[in-house]
Parts: sequence; structure tokens; C-alpha cells
Amino acid sequence: MSDKTTIGVGMVGHAFMGRVHSQAWRSVGAFFDLPLAPRMAVLAGRSKERAAAAAARLGWADVETDWRELVARDDVQIVDICTPGDSHAEIAVAALRAGKHVICEKPLANTVAEAEAMVAAAEAAPGKSMVAFNYRRVPAVALARRYVEEGRLGEIRHVRAQYLQDWIVDPEFPLVWRLMRDRAGSGALGDIGAHIVDAAQFVTGQDVVGVSALTETFVKERPLAAGSEGPAERGSAARGEVTVDDAALFIGRMSGGALASFEATRFATGRKNAMRIEVNGSLGSLAFDFESMNELWFCAGGGGFERILVTEPDHPYAGAWWPPGHGLGYEHTFTHEIRDFLEAVATGAAPSPSFADGLRVQRVLDAVERSAADGSRYTTVEER
Amino acid sequence: MSDKTTIGVGMVGHAFMGRVHSQAWRSVGAFFDLPLAPRMAVLAGRSKERAAAAAARLGWADVETDWRELVARDDVQIVDICTPGDSHAEIAVAALRAGKHVICEKPLANTVAEAEAMVAAAEAAPGKSMVAFNYRRVPAVALARRYVEEGRLGEIRHVRAQYLQDWIVDPEFPLVWRLMRDRAGSGALGDIGAHIVDAAQFVTGQDVVGVSALTETFVKERPLAAGSEGPAERGSAARGEVTVDDAALFIGRMSGGALASFEATRFATGRKNAMRIEVNGSLGSLAFDFESMNELWFCAGGGGFERILVTEPDHPYAGAWWPPGHGLGYEHTFTHEIRDFLEAVATGAAPSPSFADGLRVQRVLDAVERSAADGSRYTTVEER
Amino acid sequence: MSDKTTIGVGMVGHAFMGRVHSQAWRSVGAFFDLPLAPRMAVLAGRSKERAAAAAARLGWADVETDWRELVARDDVQIVDICTPGDSHAEIAVAALRAGKHVICEKPLANTVAEAEAMVAAAEAAPGKSMVAFNYRRVPAVALARRYVEEGRLGEIRHVRAQYLQDWIVDPEFPLVWRLMRDRAGSGALGDIGAHIVDAAQFVTGQDVVGVSALTETFVKERPLAAGSEGPAERGSAARGEVTVDDAALFIGRMSGGALASFEATRFATGRKNAMRIEVNGSLGSLAFDFESMNELWFCAGGGGFERILVTEPDHPYAGAWWPPGHGLGYEHTFTHEIRDFLEAVATGAAPSPSFADGLRVQRVLDAVERSAADGSRYTTVEER
Amino acid sequence: MSDKTTIGVGMVGHAFMGRVHSQAWRSVGAFFDLPLAPRMAVLAGRSKERAAAAAARLGWADVETDWRELVARDDVQIVDICTPGDSHAEIAVAALRAGKHVICEKPLANTVAEAEAMVAAAEAAPGKSMVAFNYRRVPAVALARRYVEEGRLGEIRHVRAQYLQDWIVDPEFPLVWRLMRDRAGSGALGDIGAHIVDAAQFVTGQDVVGVSALTETFVKERPLAAGSEGPAERGSAARGEVTVDDAALFIGRMSGGALASFEATRFATGRKNAMRIEVNGSLGSLAFDFESMNELWFCAGGGGFERILVTEPDHPYAGAWWPPGHGLGYEHTFTHEIRDFLEAVATGAAPSPSFADGLRVQRVLDAVERSAADGSRYTTVEER
Repeated sequence: MSDKTTIGVGMVGHAFMGRVHSQAWRSVGAFFDLPLAPRMAVLAGRSKERAAAAAARLGWADVETDWRELVARDDVQIVDICTPGDSHAEIAVAALRAGKHVICEKPLANTVAEAEAMVAAAEAAPGKSMVAFNYRRVPAVALARRYVEEGRLGEIRHVRAQYLQDWIVDPEFPLVWRLMRDRAGSGALGDIGAHIVDAAQFVTGQDVVGVSALTETFVKERPLAAGSEGPAERGSAARGEVTVDDAALFIGRMSGGALASFEATRFATGRKNAMRIEVNGSLGSLAFDFESMNELWFCAGGGGFERILVTEPDHPYAGAWWPPGHGLGYEHTFTHEIRDFLEAVATGAAPSPSFADGLRVQRVLDAVERSAADGSRYTTVEER
Repeated sequence: MSDKTTIGVGMVGHAFMGRVHSQAWRSVGAFFDLPLAPRMAVLAGRSKERAAAAAARLGWADVETDWRELVARDDVQIVDICTPGDSHAEIAVAALRAGKHVICEKPLANTVAEAEAMVAAAEAAPGKSMVAFNYRRVPAVALARRYVEEGRLGEIRHVRAQYLQDWIVDPEFPLVWRLMRDRAGSGALGDIGAHIVDAAQFVTGQDVVGVSALTETFVKERPLAAGSEGPAERGSAARGEVTVDDAALFIGRMSGGALASFEATRFATGRKNAMRIEVNGSLGSLAFDFESMNELWFCAGGGGFERILVTEPDHPYAGAWWPPGHGLGYEHTFTHEIRDFLEAVATGAAPSPSFADGLRVQRVLDAVERSAADGSRYTTVEER
Repeated sequence: MSDKTTIGVGMVGHAFMGRVHSQAWRSVGAFFDLPLAPRMAVLAGRSKERAAAAAARLGWADVETDWRELVARDDVQIVDICTPGDSHAEIAVAALRAGKHVICEKPLANTVAEAEAMVAAAEAAPGKSMVAFNYRRVPAVALARRYVEEGRLGEIRHVRAQYLQDWIVDPEFPLVWRLMRDRAGSGALGDIGAHIVDAAQFVTGQDVVGVSALTETFVKERPLAAGSEGPAERGSAARGEVTVDDAALFIGRMSGGALASFEATRFATGRKNAMRIEVNGSLGSLAFDFESMNELWFCAGGGGFERILVTEPDHPYAGAWWPPGHGLGYEHTFTHEIRDFLEAVATGAAPSPSFADGLRVQRVLDAVERSAADGSRYTTVEER
Repeated sequence: MSDKTTIGVGMVGHAFMGRVHSQAWRSVGAFFDLPLAPRMAVLAGRSKERAAAAAARLGWADVETDWRELVARDDVQIVDICTPGDSHAEIAVAALRAGKHVICEKPLANTVAEAEAMVAAAEAAPGKSMVAFNYRRVPAVALARRYVEEGRLGEIRHVRAQYLQDWIVDPEFPLVWRLMRDRAGSGALGDIGAHIVDAAQFVTGQDVVGVSALTETFVKERPLAAGSEGPAERGSAARGEVTVDDAALFIGRMSGGALASFEATRFATGRKNAMRIEVNGSLGSLAFDFESMNELWFCAGGGGFERILVTEPDHPYAGAWWPPGHGLGYEHTFTHEIRDFLEAVATGAAPSPSFADGLRVQRVLDAVERSAADGSRYTTVEER
């Protein structure tokens, strides 16, 4: 590895996403032949003390308390944005203008306007940019995409996508930032609905062109939390309004003629992280559930569904890891993402999913909200 | 059994539904302690020859070629209607007016108006009437209903219902009566969508109050068939227009505040008879798939899902059959239905599902079609 | 059906097996084109009153209280033996000598000597004879056999068979006849172990040639029951010795070189009727679990396992029933068995499994008991 | 992390096990609060060039070509042995005598004698020692152990353990070191059978006390390979003898009275890494399959099996990682192992599994081989 060109990375944010991105930066070189050797140069966090502790634990060489300082550093060529959605646009645009490569967590932004600004900045800048829809890098999802590309499903008729969680079923769960519109943009819709919209578009190679939607906030008020993500203030007497959706359901049409249904909810008791997609085509079908992330179910020609353990050497990403049957976990989707991003940076290829892909998802979410506000009327996804 | 009052049954139609109803009439007395002993008196079919062959095979004592003759017979107290939907209203109304008890296949009728006439006739007549939503009598579905009634799920938040088949994926599959609006009323919507609407309402005890819908006919023309149900004319050069939906997707709201999604399709390659329902409540969840009809998946309090093999003596209907683990099949849902109907006839209780329940489903289907025709706009299900 | 030759059936015993055989005799003609029309002529049971009640309920025209009278009747051409194993040999031999056809429940007998006498009688008599290993007639098991015959598995390396139940885990469950050696011959071994030995031999087309075995009786004494099958005397103070095995484990070799493992137990808490078999070959594998009886899992060429819903028209027996995805239940395995037996009787073909097949299983069970008694030493299955 | 005491690690071997151990050493500190900060000091490999490349890739600071040099280094306090079984004893004993802590891959040794020497050295030395049965650190397996300890299963009746792979089904797969007795000690038995013996003993808290066994080598000769693990020489004309078992089946008794069955094979076509264990007790049961490693199936009181996604904060190890439903992979079992080992080293507690535990497994494997050689006779596992 010593003879490879080193590339400096600066990461903004060190909560859940920061932890998993760090693990990916730290591990990727041990498993993939990288064109560039990433150096974990600097971590930015608002609190010096907490940032320093995180950097020590997660393996970052230095810290900054202002992301602008991080962006300005000469030893940073890649900016990795792991903050909530409300700051994505500002950081990404600044980083791109400073000539950096940018990898940004999803959803790309909290509004279409912000996402458009980011795409414009990406197009004008020399750096590469990528939005971190990590589920594309689940080997089973990548294999699903491959099967569709190879024509094994024929003409696609149905997409059935769900992202089911249950972490706020309890009405005493506090009002964390993900439940506040000004921080998170939306609720289940933007947080997890964005993933299944991207996955549906990625796997099928088709765009969602129009939707009809319902959204709901089942629990309207919750105990106030101290800004933390956790249920620290469970049972607090002070209450605040939940300003995002708890669940979003929408049906729609894909550009290739398929019908699609989507459901994103945090109220599916017993479903922990059931990010699911099923695609039915004229020649075959496939189905996936992230709760069993190493499995892809594939049906050829109307027979039964085959449970493919996606751990064979010729499966996407799998050859870099362990022998067949030795599964991967959640974190590895990020390792794969970082690997592909470094490849794009090194070769000059356009990373995928691009900011434009992120904007596309944002436009779908926007159409969902407009439809929900307009009596569920079928609403066309805005084209650029 | 010899000391029981005998009750004469006349059945109209002897295709798929007639075969399975016959098996139920023939078997029910061997497994359940019935208050009345059914006598399989007469079978009506348009062709004398075919009706006689069917009667011999299925165990009916006599035949008629005109259902009116069957309705008029003194040895018939129960009329069992197993014809396509376009004749349900006429036969049922006539039978009820003649003082007979009526059990009628689903969907209750092809239009709301017909269904209303049937309900009116049922209310005015002395006979008992029931619509044959057999899936209510799957032991697992009946157990699901019991769990909801017992409050084990708490407040219901989500209903997720699908009925997925794939028997017309092949564009050369012929234009059978189920693909003709004038015979079948609608396509996947009325044939299988009706089942999941009824199941959702039955299991949750809530009504669907409004829907937003998309329907699609993927294959617009098909080879003409000779009226048979089978693919007899596969590849025929003559083509006819498919006048019903191939698939119907709708999302909506339940009377108790839950969000619901429904999908009925005959284009889900590899899904043979996947009649599925999942319900998520504030305290628990349950999930069912008819392809594994002896299993109910139940989640209590946010733990994992328990696979309950619904074959224990204290499970609905199961005690009448075999020891635990010795599963039932499709036909037994009809045996249970007939048993419950005979019980209602004998005791004077109102059978369930009633014609009014059938009308309620019909109104939901009607709202689906109106929404689909009106830009997917959220459409309230008409109240009586 | 009226123009078919009628053949009279007499059944001995009307408990669990009698109930399910009756349903098969009653239903088979409605689904299969039979060469002979069975007439349910007479049922034999020791108690006149109980036999008469059972006959009325199950559809038998007459009753006898002595099986010898039944065997002697002119209107009986087929004798169906549904009694415990200790009376099989006597009844079967008498019936065969009287020129009847015989279908006999499994295990064929309680001892090898009895089974040999039955085979000798069968070979000397004009009537056809069959032992009722009904699991061969599960469509999925029959399909498994077909796949092996077609060479899809290549050279067979492993057989893994289990029959897991849990109905006597509770030490207060009473001492029913199945727990008494003089009635049942053995415990889990003969009752359910016999099924998996037969299934393993049937599916692979190979014989078990030697075994090494362990058996155990976990609960040595149980409350005395009144001879009934049910837990009528649960908690009774009087206790009796359990004289059969609760569980039997054995490993062995098949005639074609495969290794095999078998486990039969009534102490597998939570497993209700898990009759399972997995076969691994050089080219493919298959797996089955009766708790999901409509499914066969098939692996071709080292890929994943495909879940085949064995309900397609070209699957064994399935075409006679319902459309794809509309599953069968436990009882239908008997319907299929009766159908095949009638076919054999009509055509003069040898029924399968024959009494010789039943004897072969008996010899394996005998080798298991001899091995268990001899320090688990590998014990060759006796050849005739 | 900077204020923690650092402890130097030296690893011997850098093939499959070396890669996964390295990832664990590199990652463990980012997820667990460690009492000691491991420093990846030195990697030993016979080829300087290959060891240096591996060290660079895997993150080791230095290399040695002789493991003795590694053991002698002052900056090494922990020796991690990732070589084939034939060198375990020599390295471990030397390291222990040099005052090092030792973590050693499984099986502990190739013979009981070697294992005994290792246990003796461990008992005499100040350093801590551990054998790397990593499957104990699958969260689901650790949870299984917890459930048994808490008495949720009651009295244990059955253990059913299998380790099924298929990587040498192809007779042209070359003669790699794992197929040579002098290198690997045994075949499937020691490589994967060891895991299920340890898992059975760990989960139940009972020892295997006696076994009856069959072993088989299906493919007696294979193409000669160049010593590599991979199929580099597939199809080579030169052949060598396979000197280990391809499959081992054994049944036996546990110290608490349970019956146990074990099967280890590399010929289970379609099973990639199916390390499975099921335990049935008088009060409950549990089942696990590593191919779905984030799931534990638990049955309480004879109800159905609950699928527990072992990713909740209160599940073993799971709280250190991601939110519920975000699964772990194979590598994390090693991260957990390293974490527990460091904890033991820091606190002076005895690591588990100890070398004595490894010896216990070795004695079981020895009894298996003796039984197989002695007509499968029941063979008592030697006590120390």
C-alpha cells in the first residue's frame, strides 16, 4: 500500500453515519486493491472535546470544530459529509467550490432547491461527487441490478418496495432531530423512503415518473429530548410537536411502464430494518429484504424462488471478502461505497449514485409530499 | 347423523368453485358436529350432459339445466351460487324470494347496484345469506382476527395486503371469461382484490374508508378462447380486447385510523397464490401468506415474529381435524365456511360475511375504480 | 361414475387412521378418474355402538364388531387395516387368504417375523397388498423421487432425515397405547422412524444397509390412561412403565454409498410434525419438511435452493386438484394412496410400497434396535 | 484511546484466518471500550515478500519470517496463531513459555497429545490463552447460551448440530492442505466438526460423553495442487491421495442426559456454510443456522418458533454496533473474540474457550475417530 498515492479524507459529523463511514475508510484498503490510499486526515465536529474523543476512537488523525476549516485544509482532498440533511447543501457546495471531491450522506438535501444547487455545483466543479445510498452496495442488491441489466426479468411489470422500522412506536420515545422538519426535512419519507426510491430506480433502471401518496403522523407530540438521538428523555413531561411524517405510502408509475408501490414507516412493530424490494418481470422476479441481507431470491421463468446466498466469488463485491456462506453485515455496504468512490476519483469516471441521482430521488419525495397535500392526486415527478 | 334434520342443497355451476364447494358439502359432516345434515340434492348446469357428468363425479343426486328449476324445487332449502359474477344478483334474489337460504361466491356482484339489490332482497327475505369469502376460514386468518379482537395488537397503524398471482403473464394466454368485463365485472380487482379488502376489514374489524388507486392492463389483446377457463386456444390467431384490469394498486385509510395498502395482480411472476396480509399495531403485529396457509406469524411487543403452526386443538377449526402439525389445504376453507353457514341456518344467527359485508367490499372496489379513473384522487368509499 | 365397476371396501379400525382413510375413500372419486368405483361397504370396530356412530359419521354403509366377519363378507373385496400394529399380521394374512386385496397401515408389523409372514401371505395370494406409507404421496416427496430418478442430483452422498414431534414432552401425558411395547412394537422408532426410513429409501432408490443407533426413554413412568389415545387421565396418580423408546437416533450407510442420519423423537419441543428429509448429491440437493408440505427445496449445480410450490399441473397428483398455489393438506396424501392402490388393483400392477417394502423398513428398525442394544455397533440390515 | 495501556500483538500466518484476525485487531477499538489498546506490531510469514505485502495491506507494523523471532520480540505481548493445525502446539507452547498471552485458531491441535501439551503449558505459564472457536461469539449463539443458562429450555433432551459445506463436491477440486492428514489432522471432522462440538458444549453447558461415528472419504484422489488453498491446479493430471475424511457423522450422549447428533461434511451441495445447531428442552427449544447468522429461533413452552433478530441493544455484543436490524457479518465474530480476550488479559480472568476447552473438543474428535475405526461402537470420550 505504501507505493500508492495517498489521498486525504476529511469527515464532517461523527454520530451514527460518521461511525460507519470511519469503519469503511479504515478497512477498505485491506480488502480491495485500491487505486488510491485514503488517509483519515481530519474529523470535524462542533464540540472540540467530543470530536477529539471520536477521532481517537475512530482513527482520524486530527480534528476541526468548524467544517469550513476542514474544507480549507490542504491535506483534505475528499470531504465526507455525515451531518443531518439541513447542512448538506452548504457544506457540499463549499467543498466542491474548493476543488474537493465530495461524498454526501442521503437524502441529498432537505429540499429540491438545495439539491438543485448541489447538482449545479457538482457540474461546475472539477471534483467528483456521490450521494451515499449505501443499499446499492449490498451485494444482493447489486446482483439484482445485474440480473435486470442482463434481461433475466424481461419487461418489468411491478416494483414493490417497503422500508419498515419500529423504533418510534412507543409514544414516549422522545422528539429527536429526525422527528423535526427543520432538521430532517421529512420523517420516514426522507430518511428511509429515499432509500427505497433510489433502490427501485437503481435495480430497475427506470425512473419513478408519478406518484399518488398518503402520509401520516400517528403520534403528534412527544417528550422533548436534549437534541440527542437517543431516548434520553423518555418520559419527560415537556412535550413538543412532531413535525414530520411517521409513515408515507405511495403508489406510482415507472418510466418503463411498471407499477410501483412504496411504503416507509417507523411504526411497523417487529420490523427492525426491513428494507425490502420485489420486482416482477415478464420472464422472472426477484426479492430482497435487508433483514436477511446476504440473500437474494430469484425466480426464473415462473418457477419457484431460489434463495441465492450472495457470497460467491463472482457475486458483486463478495470475492473480496470470505469464502462462500460467510456473510457480510451492514457496515460493508459502506466499505463498498468508499471503494467505488475512490475508483471513480482515481479513474475520473462519474461516481454512481451521482448528485443528479440524489436530486432525482428528492424530486420523487417532493412529488410525494405534493400529492399527499393534494388529496393523493397522481402527481408527476418534476423533470429538470 | 341419521337422527339429524336433513337440509337439501342445490348448487348452481360446477366449474372450479363448484368442485370445491361439492367437496365441502360432502366432507363437512364427517368432521364437524352439524346441527343439520346437508343433502346434496341437485346440481344445475346449462349443458345436461356436462352437468350430469359433474353430478355423478361430485356426488349430487340430480341435475337441472335451468337454475330457476333448481330454485323452485321443494327438496332444495339452500342455494349455493358458484357461477361467474354477472349472474349472482339474479339467482340470489330469486332464491331469496323463493324462501331459500343462499350462499353466494364472491365478489357478491359485478356492480354496486346489483349488490345493493341483493342486500335488499336478503333483508326482506326469511332465508339466511352469506357471501363466500373463504379466506376468512383459513384457520390462520381466523386466529389473526381473534388476536386483534383480544387486543393483542393494540391500536392498529398499518395494513399491508397483497394478492399476487402470475397465471396470465404469458401474453399468449387466451381471453378467458375472467378477462372480460361483462362477465367478470373487473379483473384482478374483483377476483382477488375483493379477497384482500374483505380480509383486511375482517382481521382488523375496521372498514376501508377511502382509497387512492392505480390500475393497469399490461396486455391489451389476447388470443380468443372458446369460453373455457383454460388456455385451450393458446396461440390462436384471432385476438380480442382485454377489458379488465391486470393489476390494481391502492392505498387508503381504515376507519380506525390505520393506513392500508393493497395490491392485486396476475402479473407477479413466481407468485402463485400469494394472498398476504400484514397488520402492525402499537403492541404487536401479525403476518400471513396463503402460500404457507398453515402458518401465522405473530409479533408481541416488538420482539421477533413467532411462526405459529395453526394446527393446535384450540386454534380455530383445527381441533376438528388432525393432530398438531398435520396441515390443512385450500379446500378446507370451504368446509369451514359451509359448517358456519349451516350453523347460522340452524340457529337463526346472521351468517358472516353477510351480503352487507359483500356490498361493503363492492363499494371499496367501486371507489378504487372511480379513483383510478380520476387521477388517483383519494376517493371516499360510499356509505349506504 | 355409475358405469364403472364397483369394488367393496371394508375398513378395520376407526380412530385417527380410520378417520383419514375414510375421507380418502369418500373423496378420491371426485378428483381422480378411477378404474374402479370404491363402495364404503363396512366398518369393523369392537364396540357396536361406537362403530355404528363412526360409520354414520364417516360414511360406511354397515358395521361389524369382529374383523373376521368383515373379511368373510362377499361385498368386501378390499380390506383396509387401520388398527395398531399388533393386529396387522393376523388380519392381513386372513384377508389375503380369503382372496381380498389388502391395504395396511404402517409399520407393517411389530416384528420382523410378523412382517415376514405377511409378505409370505402376500406372495401366495391373488390379492394385491400395500403398506400405507402415506408420505410417499406428498406431491413434494413424489417430486423429489422424480428428480432423483431423472438424475438431477447425480451421485447421492448424504441423506438427512428427521421426524420431530413434541406431544409427550409433558411427563404427565398419560401412558397411551403408543407408549406400550406390546401394542405398538416400539415408540418413536416404529411410529415415525418407520416413515423416514421408508422416505429415505423411496426418494433415493437405495436401501439402508447398516446402522449404528442410540435410543432413549426420557420419561420412564407415566400416568395410567384408560386405553384411549388422548390425555384423558392426565395427572392420574397411578403410574405405569413406558416400555418403548421416546427417541431413536441412528446413522448408517445406503446401498449406493451415501451416508445417512435419522432421528425420530417425540421430545422435540415446538416441532409438531416435522417429517424432514434432505438429500445431497454430486449435482444437486433437495430438502423437504412436512410442516410446509406444499414446498420442495431444490438446488441445482451448487446454486441456491429453489422453493418449489408443488402445486403445478405437471407435479405429481397436483393436477387433479386446484390451480397453482392452492395447497393440499395432510389428508390428501391418503387420497393419493387410495387412488394408486385402486389403480394397481384394477391393472394388476404391483402396488408400491409393497409388503416387501414394509418388511424392508421393519428389518431396518430391527437393526436399529439390535445396534442400540449392542453398544451402538454398526449392524447390518438383515437381507431376506 | 491514547491514554490506554498499549499491548503489542504478533500474528503468525496471514492466509484466510490471518486476514480476518487482522480486521478484528484493527476494528475492535472503534466499537468496544477496551481495557488495553492493541498495537498490531508484527506479522510472521515464511516468505518475506508475501509477509511484507500482507502486513502492508492488513496493517501490521513489521514482519518476521520465523515465528520464533516474533515470539522473542519485546514489543509482542500477545501471540495470535493463525497457521494450520500441525504447528499450533509448537508455537503456542513456545509463546506461553516466553511469557506471552496466546490466542490460537481451532482446532487446538491435530492430536490429543499435542493438545494436552498445550494445556499443560497454559497451566504452567503466566500468560492467558484462548482457542478461537469464533462461533461462540456470534451474537445469536451467545444469546442461545444465555437462554439455556437462564433455564428457559428446561431439561435438555436433544442437540442436533450440523456443519454443511460443499466446496469439494467437484472431484477436480485439488488436493489442498486441508485435505492432507499430516497438515490438517483430519478433514471435515477437525475443521468444521470441531466447531459444532464446541458449540453444542458451549450452548448446552454439557459435555459430549460418548459417541458412535461413521466417516467417509467420497473422493479418494484429487489433482495435486501447489500447496495453495485455492483451486489453482483444477484439472491437473497428477493426482494425490486424500488422507482425511470428507464427512463425519456421529451420534452421542451429553453429560446431562441429552442425545446429540452431529454431521460435518464438505459434500452438502448447495449448503455453503450451514453451521447449525438446534436444542430441544423440556420447556423450550432454539435453533440457529450461520447462513442466517443474525437470527436465533426460539420456542417457549411448545408454541411456535420466534425469529429473533439478534441486533437489539441488550443482545450479546450487539449494543456496540448499529441500530436494531442492521446485521453483522462473519468477521465480527472475531472482533468479539478479540475483545473478550483483551478483557481477560486485562482483568486476569480466565479466557473462554480455554485451551482446556479446546482439548475437550479434541478428545471428542478423537473418540469419533476411534469409534469410526471400531465398527461405530459407542466410544467414551476420554477424561483427563
